[in-house]
Amino acid sequence: MLVDVLVATRNRKKLAELHRVLDAAGVSGLNLLSLDDVAPFDEAPETGATFEDNALAKARDAYRATGVATVADDSGLEVDALNGMPGVLSARWAGFAGEAAEKDGANTALLLAQLRDVPDERRGAGFVSACALVDGAQEVVVRGVWRGSIVRAPRGDGGFGYDPVFLPDDSERTAAELSPAEKDAVSHRGRALAQLVPTLRALGG
Amino acid sequence: MLVDVLVATRNRKKLAELHRVLDAAGVSGLNLLSLDDVAPFDEAPETGATFEDNALAKARDAYRATGVATVADDSGLEVDALNGMPGVLSARWAGFAGEAAEKDGANTALLLAQLRDVPDERRGAGFVSACALVDGAQEVVVRGVWRGSIVRAPRGDGGFGYDPVFLPDDSERTAAELSPAEKDAVSHRGRALAQLVPTLRALGG
Repeated sequence: MLVDVLVATRNRKKLAELHRVLDAAGVSGLNLLSLDDVAPFDEAPETGATFEDNALAKARDAYRATGVATVADDSGLEVDALNGMPGVLSARWAGFAGEAAEKDGANTALLLAQLRDVPDERRGAGFVSACALVDGAQEVVVRGVWRGSIVRAPRGDGGFGYDPVFLPDDSERTAAELSPAEKDAVSHRGRALAQLVPTLRALGG
Repeated sequence: MLVDVLVATRNRKKLAELHRVLDAAGVSGLNLLSLDDVAPFDEAPETGATFEDNALAKARDAYRATGVATVADDSGLEVDALNGMPGVLSARWAGFAGEAAEKDGANTALLLAQLRDVPDERRGAGFVSACALVDGAQEVVVRGVWRGSIVRAPRGDGGFGYDPVFLPDDSERTAAELSPAEKDAVSHRGRALAQLVPTLRALGG
């Protein structure tokens, strides 16, 4: 019998990513649900000061409302020359909540403009993902980091968010120029989810 | 005989501020010049990682080009919930270089939008000013800090930059609601310039 696990997102790309990570790790026995598969509940706004705070709050809220073991993530881009910002504000860096694609473009354009005069040697950055798993027996939260630097113009159509301006260390392609499988293997969320695999495997029985 | 001191700015409000600080301190014997009073020279862009770096670079460039003892400042707003940003990027936080008033409005609107979901207890901020004095004999750099918090809507017509959204600690009025003299007495730049007074007094002979 499959065990339900709720992934606290409506983002299909994130759901697909967890599917791929679990498949790659050979984890079976889980039936992944998204927020669209459960009854609506009040979702608290993400106002925590850290990715971990937000991931845990999201997972706790969903578990409390549904009784289903829940995985939630919060992630963003920490830019060295911005003292680690946009950080937890990555999704609303340009200050407005519009359609995802339009918002991504505005956030990325703002970041590039802010860094216009920042020289190459100070353009380091890291994608960070905190992933939390909450059920009646445990709360687990893990962090994955993917280091790179911010290029001067967007490149590539894949991924989402800041992917087109993020050049991973030791890569000649931006995150948006990698295939989904290539990205999973090295990305912040891939690294965080990989750390959750043992816990998820145990749920599957 | 008056001794020339170049204030490395074209901002009349900054020049007037230094005049008031010197008057209040009873410093005489100095003839303050602005960049409009000297022959044009190549001004390096402000790309330093700290206010001190930028203030010193600006003062050094001007002294080297003119041979006149030079005071330069770099200042900005450090917001706790943004890990100390906008910081050295305060003047171009919204990413564009337009007319001053329009740019100020865009920067302030962006900051308020970024902090929309940040609760009151995490809205602390500080205005910071680094002031450097460079002449053939010395390089002095000092820092002044003015602590407060970021309100949720602009108030007041005075000052410039982020003044309308900055509520100084122990004040019921924003920085833009203070008179110039009130602001000088407590502001970051006032505090920094006050630390330069002994050095400036010595120049006056």
